[in-house]
Amino acid sequence: MAQRKRYLFVCVNRRPDNAPKGSCAARGAVEVHAALKAEIASRGLAKTEVRPCSSSCLDVCWAGPAIAVEPDGYFYGRVTLEDVPAIVDALASGTRVERLVMPQSDFEEKTAGPPLPSIKPEGTAP
Amino acid sequence: MAQRKRYLFVCVNRRPDNAPKGSCAARGAVEVHAALKAEIASRGLAKTEVRPCSSSCLDVCWAGPAIAVEPDGYFYGRVTLEDVPAIVDALASGTRVERLVMPQSDFEEKTAGPPLPSIKPEGTAP
Repeated sequence: MAQRKRYLFVCVNRRPDNAPKGSCAARGAVEVHAALKAEIASRGLAKTEVRPCSSSCLDVCWAGPAIAVEPDGYFYGRVTLEDVPAIVDALASGTRVERLVMPQSDFEEKTAGPPLPSIKPEGTAP
Repeated sequence: MAQRKRYLFVCVNRRPDNAPKGSCAARGAVEVHAALKAEIASRGLAKTEVRPCSSSCLDVCWAGPAIAVEPDGYFYGRVTLEDVPAIVDALASGTRVERLVMPQSDFEEKTAGPPLPSIKPEGTAP
Protein backbone atom coordinates (compact mmCIF):
# COMPACT_ATOMS: atom_id res chain seq x y z
CA MET A 1 0.00 0.00 0.00
CA ALA A 2 1.30 3.42 -0.85
CA GLN A 3 1.92 6.19 1.62
CA ARG A 4 -1.47 7.55 2.68
CA LYS A 5 -2.43 11.13 1.97
CA ARG A 6 -3.03 11.63 5.68
CA TYR A 7 -2.20 10.01 9.00
CA LEU A 8 -4.26 10.63 12.12
CA PHE A 9 -2.45 10.26 15.42
CA VAL A 10 -5.01 9.81 18.15
CA CYS A 11 -3.49 10.23 21.61
CA VAL A 12 -4.59 7.28 23.74
CA ASN A 13 -2.39 8.04 26.73
CA ARG A 14 -3.93 6.92 30.02
CA ARG A 15 -3.13 8.21 33.52
CA PRO A 16 -4.40 6.87 36.82
CA ASP A 17 -8.07 7.70 37.36
CA ASN A 18 -7.32 10.25 40.08
CA ALA A 19 -4.61 12.15 38.17
CA PRO A 20 -5.59 15.84 38.23
CA LYS A 21 -4.53 16.32 34.61
CA GLY A 22 -6.81 13.55 33.38
CA SER A 23 -5.81 11.94 30.09
CA CYS A 24 -7.09 11.44 26.58
CA ALA A 25 -7.94 7.80 27.33
CA ALA A 26 -9.93 8.79 30.42
CA ARG A 27 -11.93 11.12 28.17
CA GLY A 28 -12.78 8.45 25.62
CA ALA A 29 -9.86 8.50 23.16
CA VAL A 30 -9.56 4.72 22.81
CA GLU A 31 -13.18 4.52 21.68
CA VAL A 32 -12.70 7.52 19.36
CA HIS A 33 -9.70 5.84 17.72
CA ALA A 34 -11.63 2.59 17.25
CA ALA A 35 -14.62 4.42 15.78
CA LEU A 36 -12.43 6.41 13.37
CA LYS A 37 -10.73 3.22 12.25
CA ALA A 38 -14.05 1.49 11.60
CA GLU A 39 -15.62 4.47 9.82
CA ILE A 40 -12.58 5.11 7.63
CA ALA A 41 -12.44 1.42 6.65
CA SER A 42 -16.16 1.18 5.96
CA ARG A 43 -15.99 4.16 3.60
CA GLY A 44 -13.09 2.62 1.67
CA LEU A 45 -10.65 5.37 2.64
CA ALA A 46 -8.18 3.27 4.63
CA LYS A 47 -5.92 2.08 1.86
CA THR A 48 -5.31 5.34 0.05
CA GLU A 49 -6.60 8.37 1.90
CA VAL A 50 -5.97 8.10 5.59
CA ARG A 51 -4.51 5.80 8.23
CA PRO A 52 -5.76 6.26 11.79
CA CYS A 53 -2.96 5.50 14.28
CA SER A 54 -2.86 5.70 18.03
CA SER A 55 -0.14 7.73 19.69
CA SER A 56 1.47 8.38 23.05
CA CYS A 57 0.90 11.71 24.83
CA LEU A 58 0.75 14.76 22.54
CA ASP A 59 1.13 17.12 25.52
CA VAL A 60 -2.29 18.75 25.24
CA CYS A 61 -4.00 16.63 27.89
CA TRP A 62 -6.45 19.38 28.91
CA ALA A 63 -7.81 19.52 25.35
CA GLY A 64 -8.13 15.78 24.86
CA PRO A 65 -9.11 13.56 23.26
CA ALA A 66 -6.60 15.10 20.85
CA ILE A 67 -5.75 14.06 17.32
CA ALA A 68 -2.78 15.28 15.25
CA VAL A 69 -3.83 15.44 11.60
CA GLU A 70 -0.71 15.06 9.48
CA PRO A 71 0.93 16.24 7.32
CA ASP A 72 -1.54 19.11 7.56
CA GLY A 73 -0.16 19.93 11.00
CA TYR A 74 -3.34 20.84 12.86
CA PHE A 75 -4.82 19.19 15.93
CA TYR A 76 -8.41 18.30 16.69
CA GLY A 77 -9.32 18.66 20.37
CA ARG A 78 -12.11 17.52 22.69
CA VAL A 79 -13.18 14.92 20.15
CA THR A 80 -16.13 12.72 21.04
CA LEU A 81 -17.67 9.71 19.36
CA GLU A 82 -20.36 11.99 17.97
CA ASP A 83 -17.71 13.92 16.03
CA VAL A 84 -16.38 10.90 14.15
CA PRO A 85 -18.72 11.05 11.11
CA ALA A 86 -17.97 14.76 10.57
CA ILE A 87 -14.22 14.12 10.84
CA VAL A 88 -14.39 11.35 8.25
CA ASP A 89 -16.61 13.46 5.97
CA ALA A 90 -13.97 16.19 6.10
CA LEU A 91 -11.16 13.72 5.38
CA ALA A 92 -13.08 12.41 2.39
CA SER A 93 -13.58 15.90 0.98
CA GLY A 94 -10.15 17.27 1.89
CA THR A 95 -11.56 19.79 4.35
CA ARG A 96 -11.51 20.01 8.14
CA VAL A 97 -14.03 20.34 10.95
CA GLU A 98 -13.26 23.89 12.02
CA ARG A 99 -15.15 23.74 15.32
CA LEU A 100 -12.79 20.98 16.50
CA VAL A 101 -9.50 22.49 15.29
CA MET A 102 -7.45 23.49 18.33
CA PRO A 103 -6.52 27.18 18.46
CA GLN A 104 -2.97 28.01 19.57
CA SER A 105 -4.36 28.99 22.98
CA ASP A 106 -5.35 25.37 23.55
CA PHE A 107 -1.73 24.22 23.37
CA GLU A 108 -1.06 25.93 26.72
CA GLU A 109 -2.93 24.70 29.77
CA LYS A 110 -3.12 28.23 31.21
CA THR A 111 -4.94 29.66 28.21
CA ALA A 112 -6.88 26.58 27.13
CA GLY A 113 -10.63 26.27 27.15
CA PRO A 114 -12.36 23.97 29.64
CA PRO A 115 -11.59 20.23 29.41
CA LEU A 116 -14.13 17.56 28.68
CA PRO A 117 -15.12 15.59 31.77
CA SER A 118 -13.37 12.29 32.34
CA ILE A 119 -15.58 9.35 31.52
CA LYS A 120 -15.97 7.18 34.56
CA PRO A 121 -14.55 3.72 33.89
CA GLU A 122 -17.29 1.09 33.84
CA GLY A 123 -18.00 -0.62 37.10
CA THR A 124 -16.64 2.10 39.38
CA ALA A 125 -18.70 3.64 42.15
CA PRO A 126 -20.65 6.81 41.20
CA MET B 1 3.98 24.64 26.01
CA ALA B 2 3.25 25.73 22.51
CA GLN B 3 2.68 23.44 19.58
CA ARG B 4 6.07 22.00 18.62
CA LYS B 5 7.55 22.68 15.20
CA ARG B 6 7.75 18.94 14.61
CA TYR B 7 6.33 15.71 15.97
CA LEU B 8 8.06 12.38 15.48
CA PHE B 9 5.84 9.32 15.49
CA VAL B 10 7.97 6.27 16.13
CA CYS B 11 6.11 3.04 15.38
CA VAL B 12 6.57 0.72 18.36
CA ASN B 13 4.13 -1.95 17.21
CA ARG B 14 5.11 -5.42 18.38
CA ARG B 15 4.06 -8.75 16.84
CA PRO B 16 4.72 -12.23 18.18
CA ASP B 17 8.40 -13.20 17.78
CA ASN B 18 7.62 -15.74 15.06
CA ALA B 19 5.42 -13.46 12.92
CA PRO B 20 6.86 -13.53 9.38
CA LYS B 21 6.32 -9.80 8.94
CA GLY B 22 8.34 -8.96 12.01
CA SER B 23 7.59 -5.60 13.62
CA CYS B 24 9.21 -2.29 14.42
CA ALA B 25 9.49 -3.24 18.09
CA ALA B 26 11.21 -6.53 17.23
CA ARG B 27 13.73 -4.49 15.25
CA GLY B 28 14.55 -2.14 18.12
CA ALA B 29 11.98 0.67 17.81
CA VAL B 30 11.26 0.95 21.54
CA GLU B 31 14.93 1.61 22.22
CA VAL B 32 15.12 4.05 19.29
CA HIS B 33 12.14 6.01 20.66
CA ALA B 34 13.71 6.15 24.14
CA ALA B 35 17.06 7.29 22.74
CA LEU B 36 15.43 9.98 20.61
CA LYS B 37 13.50 11.24 23.60
CA ALA B 38 16.62 11.42 25.76
CA GLU B 39 18.75 13.07 23.07
CA ILE B 40 16.10 15.63 22.16
CA ALA B 41 15.61 16.52 25.83
CA SER B 42 19.34 16.75 26.55
CA ARG B 43 19.82 19.17 23.69
CA GLY B 44 17.01 21.41 24.93
CA LEU B 45 14.84 20.83 21.87
CA ALA B 46 11.90 19.11 23.58
CA LYS B 47 9.86 22.11 24.60
CA THR B 48 9.87 24.06 21.37
CA GLU B 49 11.31 22.15 18.44
CA VAL B 50 10.20 18.56 18.48
CA ARG B 51 8.16 16.07 20.47
CA PRO B 52 9.01 12.40 20.02
CA CYS B 53 5.86 10.26 20.32
CA SER B 54 5.36 6.56 19.96
CA SER B 55 2.74 5.30 17.53
CA SER B 56 0.83 2.20 16.56
CA CYS B 57 1.58 0.45 13.25
CA LEU B 58 2.38 2.79 10.34
CA ASP B 59 1.96 -0.05 7.84
CA VAL B 60 5.55 -0.17 6.64
CA CYS B 61 6.65 -3.07 8.83
CA TRP B 62 9.28 -4.29 6.36
CA ALA B 63 11.06 -0.94 6.53
CA GLY B 64 10.96 -0.61 10.31
CA PRO B 65 11.85 0.80 12.70
CA ALA B 66 9.87 3.55 10.98
CA ILE B 67 9.33 7.14 12.05
CA ALA B 68 6.82 9.58 10.56
CA VAL B 69 8.31 13.08 10.68
CA GLU B 70 5.45 15.55 10.78
CA PRO B 71 4.24 17.94 9.53
CA ASP B 72 7.00 17.47 6.94
CA GLY B 73 5.33 14.26 5.80
CA TYR B 74 8.33 12.03 5.20
CA PHE B 75 9.22 8.76 6.91
CA TYR B 76 12.55 7.53 8.19
CA GLY B 77 13.05 3.79 7.80
CA ARG B 78 15.40 1.09 9.16
CA VAL B 79 16.41 3.40 11.97
CA THR B 80 18.94 2.08 14.47
CA LEU B 81 20.28 3.48 17.72
CA GLU B 82 23.40 4.59 15.84
CA ASP B 83 21.24 6.90 13.68
CA VAL B 84 19.78 8.85 16.60
CA PRO B 85 22.47 11.57 16.86
CA ALA B 86 22.26 12.29 13.12
CA ILE B 87 18.46 12.48 13.28
CA VAL B 88 18.60 14.95 16.16
CA ASP B 89 21.33 17.00 14.43
CA ALA B 90 19.05 17.26 11.41
CA LEU B 91 16.06 18.28 13.53
CA ALA B 92 18.16 20.97 15.20
CA SER B 93 19.25 22.38 11.86
CA GLY B 94 15.93 21.97 10.04
CA THR B 95 17.34 19.42 7.61
CA ARG B 96 16.86 15.66 7.22
CA VAL B 97 19.03 12.56 7.08
CA GLU B 98 18.58 11.70 3.42
CA ARG B 99 20.03 8.18 3.65
CA LEU B 100 17.22 7.25 6.07
CA VAL B 101 14.32 8.88 4.23
CA MET B 102 12.05 6.17 2.86
CA PRO B 103 11.58 6.26 -0.92
CA GLN B 104 8.05 5.63 -2.21
CA SER B 105 9.13 2.09 -3.18
CA ASP B 106 9.59 1.31 0.53
CA PHE B 107 5.90 1.91 1.22
CA GLU B 108 5.04 -1.28 -0.68
CA GLU B 109 6.35 -4.57 0.65
CA LYS B 110 6.79 -5.91 -2.90
CA THR B 111 9.14 -3.14 -3.98
CA ALA B 112 10.79 -2.40 -0.65
CA GLY B 113 14.45 -2.92 0.10
CA PRO B 114 15.56 -5.67 2.51
CA PRO B 115 14.38 -5.45 6.11
CA LEU B 116 16.65 -5.11 9.11
CA PRO B 117 16.98 -8.36 11.04
CA SER B 118 14.78 -8.78 14.08
CA ILE B 119 16.70 -8.35 17.30
CA LYS B 120 16.40 -11.47 19.37
CA PRO B 121 14.67 -10.70 22.67
CA GLU B 122 17.03 -11.06 25.62
CA GLY B 123 17.11 -14.45 27.26
CA THR B 124 15.81 -16.46 24.28
CA ALA B 125 17.66 -19.43 22.88
CA PRO B 126 20.11 -18.64 20.04
